[in-house]
Amino acid sequence: MSQKVAELLSRLEERLDRSAIVSAEEAGPRYREDPDGKAGAPPEFVLRPRTAGEVSDILRLCNEAGQRLVVQGGRTGLAGAARIEPGEAVLSLERMTAIETPDREAATIVAEAGAPLQMVQDAADSAGLLFGVDIGARGTATVGGNVATNAGGIRVLRYGMYRAQVLGLEAVLADGSILTSLKGLPKDNSGYDLNQLFIGSEGTLGVVTRACLRLHPKPATEINAFCALASLDAAIALLTLLRQKLGPLLSAYEVNFAPLYGAMVAGMDAPAPLPVGSPVYVLVEIQGQEPDRDGERFAAVLMQAVEDGVIDDVVVSQSPREFRALWAVREDANRFLFSIKGLVGVDVSIPLARIGTFLRETEAAVQAVDRNADIYVFGHLGDGNLHYQVRTVDPAAAYDIVYRGVAAAGGSVSAEHGIGLDKKEWLHLVRSDAEIATMRRLKAAFDPNNILNAGRVFDLAPATSIGDVSPQ
Amino acid sequence: MSQKVAELLSRLEERLDRSAIVSAEEAGPRYREDPDGKAGAPPEFVLRPRTAGEVSDILRLCNEAGQRLVVQGGRTGLAGAARIEPGEAVLSLERMTAIETPDREAATIVAEAGAPLQMVQDAADSAGLLFGVDIGARGTATVGGNVATNAGGIRVLRYGMYRAQVLGLEAVLADGSILTSLKGLPKDNSGYDLNQLFIGSEGTLGVVTRACLRLHPKPATEINAFCALASLDAAIALLTLLRQKLGPLLSAYEVNFAPLYGAMVAGMDAPAPLPVGSPVYVLVEIQGQEPDRDGERFAAVLMQAVEDGVIDDVVVSQSPREFRALWAVREDANRFLFSIKGLVGVDVSIPLARIGTFLRETEAAVQAVDRNADIYVFGHLGDGNLHYQVRTVDPAAAYDIVYRGVAAAGGSVSAEHGIGLDKKEWLHLVRSDAEIATMRRLKAAFDPNNILNAGRVFDLAPATSIGDVSPQ
Repeated sequence: MSQKVAELLSRLEERLDRSAIVSAEEAGPRYREDPDGKAGAPPEFVLRPRTAGEVSDILRLCNEAGQRLVVQGGRTGLAGAARIEPGEAVLSLERMTAIETPDREAATIVAEAGAPLQMVQDAADSAGLLFGVDIGARGTATVGGNVATNAGGIRVLRYGMYRAQVLGLEAVLADGSILTSLKGLPKDNSGYDLNQLFIGSEGTLGVVTRACLRLHPKPATEINAFCALASLDAAIALLTLLRQKLGPLLSAYEVNFAPLYGAMVAGMDAPAPLPVGSPVYVLVEIQGQEPDRDGERFAAVLMQAVEDGVIDDVVVSQSPREFRALWAVREDANRFLFSIKGLVGVDVSIPLARIGTFLRETEAAVQAVDRNADIYVFGHLGDGNLHYQVRTVDPAAAYDIVYRGVAAAGGSVSAEHGIGLDKKEWLHLVRSDAEIATMRRLKAAFDPNNILNAGRVFDLAPATSIGDVSPQ
Repeated sequence: MSQKVAELLSRLEERLDRSAIVSAEEAGPRYREDPDGKAGAPPEFVLRPRTAGEVSDILRLCNEAGQRLVVQGGRTGLAGAARIEPGEAVLSLERMTAIETPDREAATIVAEAGAPLQMVQDAADSAGLLFGVDIGARGTATVGGNVATNAGGIRVLRYGMYRAQVLGLEAVLADGSILTSLKGLPKDNSGYDLNQLFIGSEGTLGVVTRACLRLHPKPATEINAFCALASLDAAIALLTLLRQKLGPLLSAYEVNFAPLYGAMVAGMDAPAPLPVGSPVYVLVEIQGQEPDRDGERFAAVLMQAVEDGVIDDVVVSQSPREFRALWAVREDANRFLFSIKGLVGVDVSIPLARIGTFLRETEAAVQAVDRNADIYVFGHLGDGNLHYQVRTVDPAAAYDIVYRGVAAAGGSVSAEHGIGLDKKEWLHLVRSDAEIATMRRLKAAFDPNNILNAGRVFDLAPATSIGDVSPQ
């Protein structure tokens, strides 16, 4: 341990309780696991504050000492933002998991940053309300991480991204300043909305310690349907029809392209809801307030789509058990894909009108490099968000082809997972030099010593890599 | 004209066409009118660019010369942000009014900053879509001004504030950098969302030149009802009931407290929809997709509320003419209130649960100072947003009482109008020193020479002397 680190630790020990400071040896592999399988470096040490005041002390002292920190929530991120880089200490929010009782009249809840998403969902549910964001990692992913990555998931088309759920935050800046804005007012234009800075900036501008979140009326009805379709165009036509006929009743619209569905079904425990063989499958969900009527309305629109030749085959859930079973098929994509080692996986969004061309051209380009490459695509079609995977002998070429294709289609190289460490080499494909310079300007203003999640999203010094291509 | 201004003008003339530069004499009173009746100073000169490139040239040259600019859209703001301060030149977006044809499939529209709100609404309507924000000044207020103030209005409870409509912006920084982010992707987490910085920051961090805006399905049904109620508690109970029973069908919930309704009715051309005398009136609106059913559903809930004793009396619109007539009553509040000279008027938001206490205590405190004071309150109860007016011989005392009451109730001193020049003395009541210091930090990072809307929202140096506004 360096002299500098020893001095900092002794100052931290004056401020924090004994269990708040964990050495690298004590920590072991914990804090270093990464869902992508890339292990982080051993941390200098691990800090586990219990309050925003302690976070403030930690940041102030680390800032003075120039000690870099990586901020960790549930470590479920898929872009490496929470993976420990050499020389970093860990700031873990794992002991700040309190949530307040929801305010039913205002339809809000205040939760600490370390509380898992599912805890918020359950608390809302107990109060007869609904939290609008849901993602597969709900049991582990935390409020703070969800804010930092502006989490998306399966119901964005109904409730918006995580940003739309945030009514206020408490956040600590690198110099220890605590910004508290937890009034929960739906309308507040008294000065800059500083909360927005911390949403989606991946822990680089400050540490979120609490959030006041918006809740929604709990739906009385939840029904889903699984549909087989002949083409992407049919899936887009169905989406348009559902939006038109059902308006805000529509709460999810998930897509699964061949051959992914067939590959999943081969390894599934449960029977497949529909036969393998169609080019496209979609899972549609509605959430409504009229139990005696929503199902009828949903069935009528689906029936019309079948009659019009938009849907080839469809199964509609008739019970909560069937409802959960159809969702389990959707989530099974993750089981199947995580089981494949070395898979190229990207999370992109593309304007609906250009997805067809993107899929055709990208597949052709990938298979021109590796004719045996398998391509597995699923995602949130209602938001133009695709999770695109390639099993190939040439991952580097595949990444390059896919990301350049996305950029050419006017899309984003990260729809909902963020940039972290792992995607920053492609950021310049979709953000201009002026935009990246502005991000650096913000970083310098908020964290001049670059102690918070340094090197995530972008590097402070302009990249010098060969092949730097600026977007138009 | 100073030597410095003359030199700057000659540099601007090299870059801009002749009609883009207007002298103070040529401009006359235009650019100086203010809806509050407070005249602005004569401008040094007026700049009327046609493109983002011209805005960039203007900002770069003014930044180099230290020439302060006030950015103007439709000049309908109610906080003085666009009022000319001595020494300022005007940057008017009035010639940037182009709007693109809406993209029906993506449900988006791209509009230049100078386009009036109503032009966006009409374009959406022509494409079979709806723009989610509506405010009284729709014919004059512009897209750029709406972004800069994060406009609210009557349908926030259904569609959110203006922030929720913004999918992307083009903005120019003080140094002339152009940031363009107009892809219109509903999900994009590739680096910081810089758009958020410009929304609600009242032109102090950059000049918005274009926006990509979200559109919604056009409702097939629009029905409203005007209700008389016995108390604020009844109005809150009705809101809760409507939310529960109608979910997202509910699109507006406007309140009008006695004695305002009676005073308005006395001067109205049209007959009053309900007799004067109730303590509280609300205008409820629904927007739905089922013409053969929405009206029935709405009527059933209102009927239940009447039976339960929540509503004392109600009239429901039976035609588009009656629908417009009920909205005209709501908008008549502005006609009545603007006709009173020297009225104290504030735009605040307060948590629903604390509005009752706030109204009682504030009225008592105001009338303790001036027993003849009249208090007129209306607003967007669905968002906890009240427009609170006092006719009094002691306006200074009234402002102080109202704003301190709002702060004590955990509210905001500006729900939707912004802070501008006129409300900054009260900002500290609702934002901490750490928050205001962070706003200053952002301002210094984006506009180090303080040329853009200087002195709006907050002063750069704490408590500077009066009159310290003109550049050296």
